[in-house]
Amino acid sequence: MRPIILALPKGRILEEAAEIFARAGHDLSVVFGDSRRLVHEAGQLRVLVLRNSDVPTYVAHGAADAGVVGSDVLDEEGRELYEPLDLGIGRCRMIVAERADQRFDDRAQSHLRIATKYPRTTRAYLDRKGITAEVIELSGAIELGPLTGLCERIVDITQTGETLRQNGLVEIDTIAQVSARLVVNPARLKLDGDRLGALIDALERALAR
Amino acid sequence: MRPIILALPKGRILEEAAEIFARAGHDLSVVFGDSRRLVHEAGQLRVLVLRNSDVPTYVAHGAADAGVVGSDVLDEEGRELYEPLDLGIGRCRMIVAERADQRFDDRAQSHLRIATKYPRTTRAYLDRKGITAEVIELSGAIELGPLTGLCERIVDITQTGETLRQNGLVEIDTIAQVSARLVVNPARLKLDGDRLGALIDALERALAR
Repeated sequence: MRPIILALPKGRILEEAAEIFARAGHDLSVVFGDSRRLVHEAGQLRVLVLRNSDVPTYVAHGAADAGVVGSDVLDEEGRELYEPLDLGIGRCRMIVAERADQRFDDRAQSHLRIATKYPRTTRAYLDRKGITAEVIELSGAIELGPLTGLCERIVDITQTGETLRQNGLVEIDTIAQVSARLVVNPARLKLDGDRLGALIDALERALAR
Repeated sequence: MRPIILALPKGRILEEAAEIFARAGHDLSVVFGDSRRLVHEAGQLRVLVLRNSDVPTYVAHGAADAGVVGSDVLDEEGRELYEPLDLGIGRCRMIVAERADQRFDDRAQSHLRIATKYPRTTRAYLDRKGITAEVIELSGAIELGPLTGLCERIVDITQTGETLRQNGLVEIDTIAQVSARLVVNPARLKLDGDRLGALIDALERALAR
């Protein structure tokens, strides 16, 4: 029988997710053996270790049956996925920040530029708030933007706020609370409901304990 | 006087670019001191060390006067930048590949899916060739796509072809030869033509030696 294919993101969420899967009876420790290896056989599960933004892509296309990914990435990607469980791991906040020593005056009508890895989320936030701004998409080191004059503000995730403080930035708004979710391909759930349903139930019981 | 602000990409091109700048009279060795530091003062230059896809963004917005970045990223980003020099470093090829053990038959009219980090470049290539395909954007580990059934082909850069071979993939077409370019913000070049012109000239002489 084909294994259930599970897409997990590299990094901190991988370790925390493996701990929950272990409590649900699925030992994923094999994924921590060889960090260059991206496909691992773990009993009934085949685990793909991916960049977090690629997890929804694999699940949406059915190349993975299920996956674990932060709600920040899910909201940004906007895929039609079944999202049965909040795993309560990878908690952080999506925030707006600016320089502590150079506050942007909303009333001055000057041109506001916001750098982010999350252009769709940022655009939706600006529309909700009625703020006019240019959104500049970056792929890394967002906190460098205001320091180099690229932008006045950033939208990014933060856990402790430490990176923001080290770069002389202050939070001015919170857009969303972020945590990692279990996502499932809706078509695969219909075709293989018994096994995927059992996995979801086992994870739900593990979380309740 | 404000330093000339130079955006360089992390990784292999950073080292090769520093070697060319050294021959042009600009010692950038300070950038190799602390890998967490992203802003470095190197004589007349201030160096920002960025993700490669962020280099055109910083130069286009004038947060950097000039930058070094691969032609793969430049072609994909499609920014209006002055591109005075091919530095001849970071050489690789943009290729199309598929599984050696599962060749895709163009004539079979089946649905072709191509995974890539370069969706614009891939779309332009497909349009030129008159190929109908779905383009799936990934952010990492593109070579995993065909192995997991996500896609039939990939478009990616390769230097030696070793990663492709290790993953059982074969090249079926070359889209472009890639190398790193010096890019300059056109408005900054007009405003600060003497200093930026001198930098370009010094780099050109270093390359000619």
